[in-house]
Amino acid sequence: MIKITGKSYIAGKWITPTGKSFRSVNPYTNESMMSFATCGETEIDQALTEAEHAYQTMRKLAGDAIGNFLNVLADEVEKLGDQLLEIGDSETALGIPRLIGERGRTCSQIRAFAELTIKGEWVQASIDTAIPDRVPIPKADLRRMMKAIGPVAVFGASNFPFAFGTLGGDTASAFAAGNPVIVKGHPAHPATSELFANAVDKAVKKTDMPEGIFSLLQGEGIDLGACLVKHPSIKAVGFTGSKKGGRSLMDIASARPEPITVYAEMGSINPVFVGPNTLKVQAKQIAGALSRSVCMGTGQFCTSPGILVSTENEVFETTLKQTLTDTPRGCLLNLGIAKKLQAGLKRLIDNPKVEWLNPSSFEDGSLTPPNAVFKVRAADFLVDDNLSEEVFGPVTLYVVCDDELQILEVAKCLKGNLSASIHCDEDKELAAEICAVLEQKVGRVIFNGYPTGVEVCPSQQHGGPYPASSISTATSVGTGAVVRFARFVAYQNTPNMFLPDALKNENPLGIYRLVNNELTKDQL
Amino acid sequence: MIKITGKSYIAGKWITPTGKSFRSVNPYTNESMMSFATCGETEIDQALTEAEHAYQTMRKLAGDAIGNFLNVLADEVEKLGDQLLEIGDSETALGIPRLIGERGRTCSQIRAFAELTIKGEWVQASIDTAIPDRVPIPKADLRRMMKAIGPVAVFGASNFPFAFGTLGGDTASAFAAGNPVIVKGHPAHPATSELFANAVDKAVKKTDMPEGIFSLLQGEGIDLGACLVKHPSIKAVGFTGSKKGGRSLMDIASARPEPITVYAEMGSINPVFVGPNTLKVQAKQIAGALSRSVCMGTGQFCTSPGILVSTENEVFETTLKQTLTDTPRGCLLNLGIAKKLQAGLKRLIDNPKVEWLNPSSFEDGSLTPPNAVFKVRAADFLVDDNLSEEVFGPVTLYVVCDDELQILEVAKCLKGNLSASIHCDEDKELAAEICAVLEQKVGRVIFNGYPTGVEVCPSQQHGGPYPASSISTATSVGTGAVVRFARFVAYQNTPNMFLPDALKNENPLGIYRLVNNELTKDQL
Repeated sequence: MIKITGKSYIAGKWITPTGKSFRSVNPYTNESMMSFATCGETEIDQALTEAEHAYQTMRKLAGDAIGNFLNVLADEVEKLGDQLLEIGDSETALGIPRLIGERGRTCSQIRAFAELTIKGEWVQASIDTAIPDRVPIPKADLRRMMKAIGPVAVFGASNFPFAFGTLGGDTASAFAAGNPVIVKGHPAHPATSELFANAVDKAVKKTDMPEGIFSLLQGEGIDLGACLVKHPSIKAVGFTGSKKGGRSLMDIASARPEPITVYAEMGSINPVFVGPNTLKVQAKQIAGALSRSVCMGTGQFCTSPGILVSTENEVFETTLKQTLTDTPRGCLLNLGIAKKLQAGLKRLIDNPKVEWLNPSSFEDGSLTPPNAVFKVRAADFLVDDNLSEEVFGPVTLYVVCDDELQILEVAKCLKGNLSASIHCDEDKELAAEICAVLEQKVGRVIFNGYPTGVEVCPSQQHGGPYPASSISTATSVGTGAVVRFARFVAYQNTPNMFLPDALKNENPLGIYRLVNNELTKDQL
Repeated sequence: MIKITGKSYIAGKWITPTGKSFRSVNPYTNESMMSFATCGETEIDQALTEAEHAYQTMRKLAGDAIGNFLNVLADEVEKLGDQLLEIGDSETALGIPRLIGERGRTCSQIRAFAELTIKGEWVQASIDTAIPDRVPIPKADLRRMMKAIGPVAVFGASNFPFAFGTLGGDTASAFAAGNPVIVKGHPAHPATSELFANAVDKAVKKTDMPEGIFSLLQGEGIDLGACLVKHPSIKAVGFTGSKKGGRSLMDIASARPEPITVYAEMGSINPVFVGPNTLKVQAKQIAGALSRSVCMGTGQFCTSPGILVSTENEVFETTLKQTLTDTPRGCLLNLGIAKKLQAGLKRLIDNPKVEWLNPSSFEDGSLTPPNAVFKVRAADFLVDDNLSEEVFGPVTLYVVCDDELQILEVAKCLKGNLSASIHCDEDKELAAEICAVLEQKVGRVIFNGYPTGVEVCPSQQHGGPYPASSISTATSVGTGAVVRFARFVAYQNTPNMFLPDALKNENPLGIYRLVNNELTKDQL
């Protein structure tokens, strides 16, 4: 068992910050637990001085070394054993089974990035050889690849304390690209974060990585995050959380003397579209599966299906209402989220055009919300922007359309979303039309499925147009996430000895490279 | 001959804007020429309404169709013939030989993007096939590729009226990705822009492209550009110009309700580093070649070598001074640039630590500046940030270091640059150390060469850390520029018939795809 100290971790050393203290809270019991102190500018400076040093070492490391570090890191996370699950559960109430799954995902994610760096192809190496006798001017030899960008700040999410947390996808992908990472610890699960920092500490020592590769700055309040993003040594930011929080960091980052990019993954209502004929045939099945997706993790998924768009269908409506009502209430992460959910529900309840199909109580101070389904006519939905705002929790809105045309109209009026789902097995023509609209609005189009469950693989796209993400071209899940934390460098007429391995004539890494516009593993 | 009308071009129609009028000026004679009117919100709205329509057509087009349009477009630019050269020269004073070269580059650039879209591999197609029997949960089929992002605003540069102008790399790459483009015409060469719009008009009609694919909004002053960037239909911005102009657009774009990315290519001093031993051996040769690079295009290149860093060398200094003084003065683009250059020279002249080696007059109102070389000790350079500000024109600063250590120190203190050059054939150890520093500071490291002359090819990187560019991960030259104007979309469990060709089982485009993490052209 590791003793939780309440300290922050800066480049291999455990320190006690001098800032305001705060306590973690057990959502099951509402009891305060451990005390932690908030880091400030001193700690940020220390972490970044060390990160700068580490960057100078890391950027010269072979992909194998980074990959080895990541593999050992995944092992060390697993070695945290039941303590990680228990402490994680005591801070989040997500439940042991869910956290076992999330730990598995976190470790396989870290290992996927290890594999990526060992393989080495992610750098997109490209070579255009010289043509000395070209007229009117000779063509130079040019070679290009992606290189680490420098220290990255990571803000983890409360709802995925492992997979999007201290050692989640942002941290793993920033490491994979060869960058040091400064994590701003989420105040809702500081002990969980501290455990992860212990795992990093072991992995760093076992693999002889520079200590500045990682710091965990614990803290409550907005100052720490704001100062971190303002620090000139920070070269990019990864963030998962609310639209308000993400936008605030984006604004800080773009006002810097040297603006940097914040990769923020924010809110989304993840609409599910169902063709009228398909709903007739699959009413009960879709109602059941949708309920499970809505209630998953007590609705606290960035991909939770916030609206279902179809025509009127009584069997579907009755089944959905019943299933959601019958699903046992879950426990929310913390009081802050409960308050926001209450406000979101109130907005729906107070809207005269919206009907709560399964009304139920949700008292102040309670962390166990009802699984709620609301209903609205599409005509009303289309004229009320508030109804397409995310309500974070186990809540969905049945948007009832008059016909297929109106279903398409709803699709066209959507803002950016992480995902959208299409159930149209019996409505093939509509499917094609909806798909053509949705692929302009979302990062991931799902057929005959539900948005929760985001596979970690190269073809994943977790990121859509604003406000789903800050940078719609990027993904925060899957190995494609690595390119957020690297930039291209070109080498012109550079002697072979000075070139990085990925660009050397003899292709020592044996990777695919674009040579004179053709992909090949050949040597030059 | 095409009649220059002074109109703007909106989606196939020539219109007369109602805004303030302005005149183009001949830099050779200082005479006012044609009158043009400035577009406003009405014209922006018209252009974007049509662009939105065009986008709906373009996004469904095969790469072949876009490629064909681009090839025809390049032909139409060539067909503008001598008129383009003459009008271009009358508005820029760049000279016919230079403009012939630039036209060649512009057309080959458009054709390179045509080849890219026809080949179809730029979309980075990737497929992860399903594993239905995976435990604990089945793995879905996921496929991902890049798709057009939507209407793009382009702000061309005054110094490359063809290659970075109305139909320059930004416009060509935005088209290649499948986007409509709205060009904010540069007020310094409006007739040149109008000619290019004529070429687009012909290409659009010949290839049956939607008319909204292109608009040219002429205008003077900052309002038009600001309104354009604020328009909700604009999804990204390409800009080439000053740091002040680029930053202003970046700030507007990031303050939008839906922030968008401005790809701005801004200032750079493109340092040239020469090892002491190398300078001894190659003093005259380097002085001569450096002079040519400094004077190229009257120093109005974003890659003009603004500083040379080495140790003291009398032969080099004398030769450089002499060669620059002997090189005939060129003509600047316009009075605005002359005024900025005068201010930049004054900053150097007024600096007591800086010596002007070949002092000469540059009178108010003159467009023919001296080719100037200044000299400063590295110790003074290192403590004065002003000395690493770009002076746009035929000016270079010889930074004299005490030794190799100080040369490295100068490298380490640099801000972001587009390029840096290393001449160290006789200083191999120093070369390795400088290279390791410079690749963190610049987009392109050049050995034994000079920064002017930016090859258009897949391995080019024209873009470095801020303030060289707004987004250091992107390039604005070379086919890699296309990804700026596209974003990834993933398709989950999507029936083959609904998938884009690039992701279909049978691989109808015959492109390389990452299938289950291995590059292959195989069908599924």
